Amino acid sequence: MKILGLDSSGLVAGVALVEDGVLLAEYTLNYKKTHSQTLLPMLDELKNMLELDLDSIDAIAIAAGPGSFTGLRIGAATAKGLGLALDKPLIEVPTLEGLAYNMFGTDRLVCPIMDARRNQVYTGIYRFIPEGTGFSMVALEEQCAKDIREVIARLNEMQREVIFLGDGVPVYSQILAEEMHVNYYLAPAANNRQRAASVASLGEVLYKQGRTVTAAEHRPEYLRKSQAEREQEEKAMQEQAAKLLSEQAVEV
Amino acid sequence: MKILGLDSSGLVAGVALVEDGVLLAEYTLNYKKTHSQTLLPMLDELKNMLELDLDSIDAIAIAAGPGSFTGLRIGAATAKGLGLALDKPLIEVPTLEGLAYNMFGTDRLVCPIMDARRNQVYTGIYRFIPEGTGFSMVALEEQCAKDIREVIARLNEMQREVIFLGDGVPVYSQILAEEMHVNYYLAPAANNRQRAASVASLGEVLYKQGRTVTAAEHRPEYLRKSQAEREQEEKAMQEQAAKLLSEQAVEV
Repeated sequence: MKILGLDSSGLVAGVALVEDGVLLAEYTLNYKKTHSQTLLPMLDELKNMLELDLDSIDAIAIAAGPGSFTGLRIGAATAKGLGLALDKPLIEVPTLEGLAYNMFGTDRLVCPIMDARRNQVYTGIYRFIPEGTGFSMVALEEQCAKDIREVIARLNEMQREVIFLGDGVPVYSQILAEEMHVNYYLAPAANNRQRAASVASLGEVLYKQGRTVTAAEHRPEYLRKSQAEREQEEKAMQEQAAKLLSEQAVEV
Repeated sequence: MKILGLDSSGLVAGVALVEDGVLLAEYTLNYKKTHSQTLLPMLDELKNMLELDLDSIDAIAIAAGPGSFTGLRIGAATAKGLGLALDKPLIEVPTLEGLAYNMFGTDRLVCPIMDARRNQVYTGIYRFIPEGTGFSMVALEEQCAKDIREVIARLNEMQREVIFLGDGVPVYSQILAEEMHVNYYLAPAANNRQRAASVASLGEVLYKQGRTVTAAEHRPEYLRKSQAEREQEEKAMQEQAAKLLSEQAVEV
């Protein structure tokens, strides 16, 4: 079974191919170029180096959000395009689960944090539970958008050692140092950002559980409204309020 | 600080760039092409995508062996060539330590096994010890070539849960299942083979400890003699024995 993994949910663009529990190829870029410039050329590069017939892929695992709005849209467009053209199902891997899967095999809690600005993070809390010669990953807190201090308070309550990873770590390192009362650790360079290999690897697990969608069905999970939508809603509310006030003024 | 990581010790060819604890790029191929066809084009690809000035690299971390003789020689030639041309130091990362580093953050034992044929594996036993907000990896058994059954006996003695990874796992899965008496787990697709990102990531740690060599000094660590050398030695011994016997015959 061959699973193609794609992740463009954050700054990282990643493409990976996993076959029956072995990584055949992975390409990761964490650079200022936009994902629209990198993701497809990276896939094309792997395709050529592996002499890969894309038709031999069984499914496309995509980091399905949350994350950067533009990144998620580029990832979704790419995955949907491939899925439609090749007539293959998609596997929606929640971004935070893909990220947490980097720390497979730890018995500490895993808390990925992605910076969502204004002290908010996209986060979740995960644990690996032994199962045969592997582990199943369970969510103690499903992915959500939260204030970083709420996340810390919850982890302090849980009183278990925790490993943090994600682009939120450098942003909130000061707050972590000041407010975490349980021992915590930071993932190293090799594992502290999104990896398409983890998306494909976890995707393989979900695929076996039948958790696929069609290319047409796939929608990214934004978790929050985009800034444009928030601003539009705010403006609409202000206009409505102004209208109400002016109507009142007329009635008076 | 920028560390370039190279690994061609096994079937996998890998190139990665780490800067100050963050992975900028990684390219991994696990395919039948020989490393002489892949390693430099892969580096060139990353260089172009990252618009990287190779002169900005501080050191080159190389998976220094053991492993495939040809693979190690290609890796050494590449690292030495780059080191000489750019006048940068090399960091020799023992192959098994680089592999074990994939499992950073687990509190189980980590036992990478690379198939060395005839029931022999290249292996080592490692543990992650908390240190500040990170872990330092310590070798409970330094890397060596051993019979797989000896490795299992040692792990059974240690009576601690263990995670196996490496290309020896599918080869010796039957023996593991039959003879391991402690709980053991297998690393997932994303982490069960060599990763240049782990070599670079661990390389960064060694670099800070001043553990570098010059390009001229670097020699791969083969751990065992090559088959050609073993056959040559065997032949030389047989010839010597034959000579001794014929001399004895003359004396009698």
